[in-house]
Amino acid sequence: MIKHGRNRAVIEKVMPEINKGLFSARAFPGESIHVEAHAYADGHDEITVMLYYRHESSKQWESSGMSLRWNDEWTGSFKAEKEGRYIYRVSAWVDGYKTWKNGLLKKAGAGQALEVEFKIGAEILKGIIKRVQVKKDIEELEKAFAAFLKGGSSALEFVNSGVIEAISVKYPDPELVSDYDRELRVNVEPPRTGFSAWYEIFPRSCAKEEGVHGTFKDAEAWLPVIKELGFDVVYFPPIHPIGVKGRKGRNNTLKPAPGDPGSPWAVQNHKEIHPQLGTTVDFEEFVKAAKKLRIDTALDIAFQCSPDHVYITEHPEWFKWRTDGTIQYAENPPKKYEDIVPFNFENDNWQELWDELVSVFIFWAEKGVRIFRVDNPHTKPFGFWEYALKKVKERYPGTIFLAEAFTRPKIMHMLAKTGFNQSYTYFTWRNTKQEIEGYVNELVHAESRWFFTPNFWPNTPDILHEYLQKGGRPAHVIRLVLAATLSSNYGIYGGAFITIDNEPFPGKEENNNNEKYQLKNWDLRQEGSIFDEVKRINAIRRENPALQTTWNTRFYYASNDNVIFYIKADEEKKNIIMTAVNLDPHNKQAAVVHVPAAD
Amino acid sequence: MIKHGRNRAVIEKVMPEINKGLFSARAFPGESIHVEAHAYADGHDEITVMLYYRHESSKQWESSGMSLRWNDEWTGSFKAEKEGRYIYRVSAWVDGYKTWKNGLLKKAGAGQALEVEFKIGAEILKGIIKRVQVKKDIEELEKAFAAFLKGGSSALEFVNSGVIEAISVKYPDPELVSDYDRELRVNVEPPRTGFSAWYEIFPRSCAKEEGVHGTFKDAEAWLPVIKELGFDVVYFPPIHPIGVKGRKGRNNTLKPAPGDPGSPWAVQNHKEIHPQLGTTVDFEEFVKAAKKLRIDTALDIAFQCSPDHVYITEHPEWFKWRTDGTIQYAENPPKKYEDIVPFNFENDNWQELWDELVSVFIFWAEKGVRIFRVDNPHTKPFGFWEYALKKVKERYPGTIFLAEAFTRPKIMHMLAKTGFNQSYTYFTWRNTKQEIEGYVNELVHAESRWFFTPNFWPNTPDILHEYLQKGGRPAHVIRLVLAATLSSNYGIYGGAFITIDNEPFPGKEENNNNEKYQLKNWDLRQEGSIFDEVKRINAIRRENPALQTTWNTRFYYASNDNVIFYIKADEEKKNIIMTAVNLDPHNKQAAVVHVPAAD
Repeated sequence: MIKHGRNRAVIEKVMPEINKGLFSARAFPGESIHVEAHAYADGHDEITVMLYYRHESSKQWESSGMSLRWNDEWTGSFKAEKEGRYIYRVSAWVDGYKTWKNGLLKKAGAGQALEVEFKIGAEILKGIIKRVQVKKDIEELEKAFAAFLKGGSSALEFVNSGVIEAISVKYPDPELVSDYDRELRVNVEPPRTGFSAWYEIFPRSCAKEEGVHGTFKDAEAWLPVIKELGFDVVYFPPIHPIGVKGRKGRNNTLKPAPGDPGSPWAVQNHKEIHPQLGTTVDFEEFVKAAKKLRIDTALDIAFQCSPDHVYITEHPEWFKWRTDGTIQYAENPPKKYEDIVPFNFENDNWQELWDELVSVFIFWAEKGVRIFRVDNPHTKPFGFWEYALKKVKERYPGTIFLAEAFTRPKIMHMLAKTGFNQSYTYFTWRNTKQEIEGYVNELVHAESRWFFTPNFWPNTPDILHEYLQKGGRPAHVIRLVLAATLSSNYGIYGGAFITIDNEPFPGKEENNNNEKYQLKNWDLRQEGSIFDEVKRINAIRRENPALQTTWNTRFYYASNDNVIFYIKADEEKKNIIMTAVNLDPHNKQAAVVHVPAAD
Repeated sequence: MIKHGRNRAVIEKVMPEINKGLFSARAFPGESIHVEAHAYADGHDEITVMLYYRHESSKQWESSGMSLRWNDEWTGSFKAEKEGRYIYRVSAWVDGYKTWKNGLLKKAGAGQALEVEFKIGAEILKGIIKRVQVKKDIEELEKAFAAFLKGGSSALEFVNSGVIEAISVKYPDPELVSDYDRELRVNVEPPRTGFSAWYEIFPRSCAKEEGVHGTFKDAEAWLPVIKELGFDVVYFPPIHPIGVKGRKGRNNTLKPAPGDPGSPWAVQNHKEIHPQLGTTVDFEEFVKAAKKLRIDTALDIAFQCSPDHVYITEHPEWFKWRTDGTIQYAENPPKKYEDIVPFNFENDNWQELWDELVSVFIFWAEKGVRIFRVDNPHTKPFGFWEYALKKVKERYPGTIFLAEAFTRPKIMHMLAKTGFNQSYTYFTWRNTKQEIEGYVNELVHAESRWFFTPNFWPNTPDILHEYLQKGGRPAHVIRLVLAATLSSNYGIYGGAFITIDNEPFPGKEENNNNEKYQLKNWDLRQEGSIFDEVKRINAIRRENPALQTTWNTRFYYASNDNVIFYIKADEEKKNIIMTAVNLDPHNKQAAVVHVPAAD
């Protein structure tokens, strides 16, 4: 801890600091980064605690004074203006001038004689002046010095003006300065990472006529509707050729009927397009057409193989073979995926596997894709993701990865740390007021807030919660409003959600006649759909900065347990959104809510 | 994070880890060190998490398997048998055998065919056998291998016996092993650091006759009494010559009467003995006589100077001079010490000051002192303590330092981290049930438990709490029992406490006619004293291992807020002490208490 015998301040527990600084914290452009530190010194002297920061593109450190909150805990902040990495560090020192000033003001307040005090102050100023490098600052301090020598009211005026400490904090005695044990980093992400509305759509279900396999061209015709609805990310499940071997039939049956299209997640070749969807050119045109409407295309990448995948013959060493010559199919308990086999990441030829998988991302990035929704990342090693995401982002800066991991919290967190920009969450299963408040408070206030960016989905092709099954249209509107106003990132599996297609497969938390295994034909404006509600909520989100961050969500009292009430405000508190939601899809509910006057 | 592409386990947040491992954790001989870690891997495979540890004197790592508690949090432990430093580290890996075994047992439970499974198991065994270095282990595994090839009940027996994993965890595939990012240390302290009863006594008040200045010889005559009372540390306030310049009179007055002895904390020379107490030889003889009774002598070291201290003329640069040629006297707000001046630790000649102060400890260590009670350490730099305590302990291993710091929590914690073995606490000001439970729970359960060893004092010459002032004899017994049974280390400022000398200086939290400024003459067995109670409680402490640690204190329900109830048990739960204390010194109180059957 000793840097030099004269440095007496101690700095501990700077936050954000993720895994001792191994990982970057995360922020979004324009956000204020609030840094905390424990800092103190022995004795009764005043200390100054300073936050230094710089964008990686600049060598010049900026500084910002930190304030004592309580109990030797200090806070400070800086504005993350632009994308890329900021580096920050904290220093502290016993501040002789500040200590002297506080003593002086106390004595002045008690009407005591100040001559000797001002002489001591002049000595302190002399010491500071020696270290000052800027002429203007020297001149200013020399004026103060002269006033101190004379003492009296003009000296006191100098003290009260705050001019002296504004200069002196720039030139601390280096022997007195303690530095925190490391520099830390915060990554300012592309704006879309912090604020996005996703629309999941199966291009094969985009044909005008029922029963016809849709194409990218058909999907392109849907873009104006998606734009009208107000979404800015259109997300495609895998668009690759679907395996024939092991193919699933309708409703996840093991024997497909002739013509059953199979699950798109049973990928037969990660670098090709399913022929019925069109050509690579068609896909690139779709991406461009979407881009023109300011809609990004997100592609689903599922690192797993249908049993007739080209990798299995070309790289048998990438798979775990049983002694009976088979490969164990994939499982994500309790779900079984008989139509796919997993990679064996412990295989000896792991480096080639890693590089091949990286090349899959690169392949699609070359076709214009800048957002990847990654299927089941929690069943692949963290080290692989750290490697792969870095490689892709180096080549295509600003690429965004959404982790589809529904698993234990520490695993979801580690995926976020390795580089996933957004993450699916437990929101889908948090339906009561207590559940929602508890979960959102955890997301917003726990350490994970610094690296785990939630994306709230009320439904997915995999999950149709009982609440939606039983609550019908009102439940869909409730979950839409919650997702879209609690989290700045949200998405819907659109066709089923907007048309209230909520019939479950008996005994399961999934849609019956699930689009995963068959073509669908959605009429978003059909009687009873929530087309207008979705459109309205997305418009409100775009118009109100308060809804464009998740970290400002604060819950307030509502007298009825069926009513949840929260307020969000932007940093300047110019835009304030109060949201009250009746969580009961079956009955009207009334509640008294408390709006704190201070807010 | 990537060590090798095949290692998939992640380890985070190993505890205890103090300031990223910069400081050692602390334990006492015979204690079990409970280590925690977050550990997990991707996917659904089983992991093994292993705790390795060794005493610094051994190069051989011992190992102990960790168990999953919940939510990817693992716990393990090792026994700190002997004094000195232990080093520990945590590793984890995906355990192919364990994963296979769990799958097999599920299939066996479901009555499925196991032939193929056992063949796969045999392949796994083959892989393990390649890494085994001990012949006996190879033979054991080869037996299992043969059984697996045959399959059937004898194979299943091998699986169920646990023999295979007991061997296989010793030989993990090094490419699969993830190691925590650092090795950590725990320092096993001298036994007395963990269990001690202190008796504070002014040797100058030890004379038989009132008004006569006592000597070390007089103090020696008290040793049998202190022994009878059951204390094992006798603690002397400073024994150095007392300054004449600035000397305080009775009751902290600024003008002493002729013959007033002054405060022993106004030290005039840190390496001399106050002549009225006797000679260096007398002191050494006292230390030896105490040692014979298994009582350690603790000496108060106060790094501050009377205005006529030798240092002020020899080393004027060690002090902060005001422009009027004076040195500002010491303050510990709101207390003012007009009879002492502080060192200026920011002086340019700090290294010489540090070394001189270290030599003070060494000087008294040479005279046989192995326990120092350090006055106001929080007004000296942490870096100095880190340096000084290390130096003294290197030269005199097993030396114990008690920090007399009553200040803000983080400062008290940092002093403990720098090497203070025991610390004064807020116990003196925690009197209600809620206050006591809250504070003790914090001491026992927060991270500070690993470095901050409390020493509970119901009173000191500086502090006579209102509770003692108003509660009289019952209050003294209550505070005695609480201090002695809640904390394994406790102490009393004996004369005043045992004789219930509790008259406050008007308006202050201090004794009237305070022994700090005048001689006293205590009769510990006078009518109404609590001599027998003190003797009894110390005897109980010695007889019951459950009272010899602080970390086992657990509070339980008592139906009356005036009654506090707690249970302490030793590690083996052979010795269990239940304590119920009526906190109301004025009235009888009754309560129903809950004793959990499980305990």
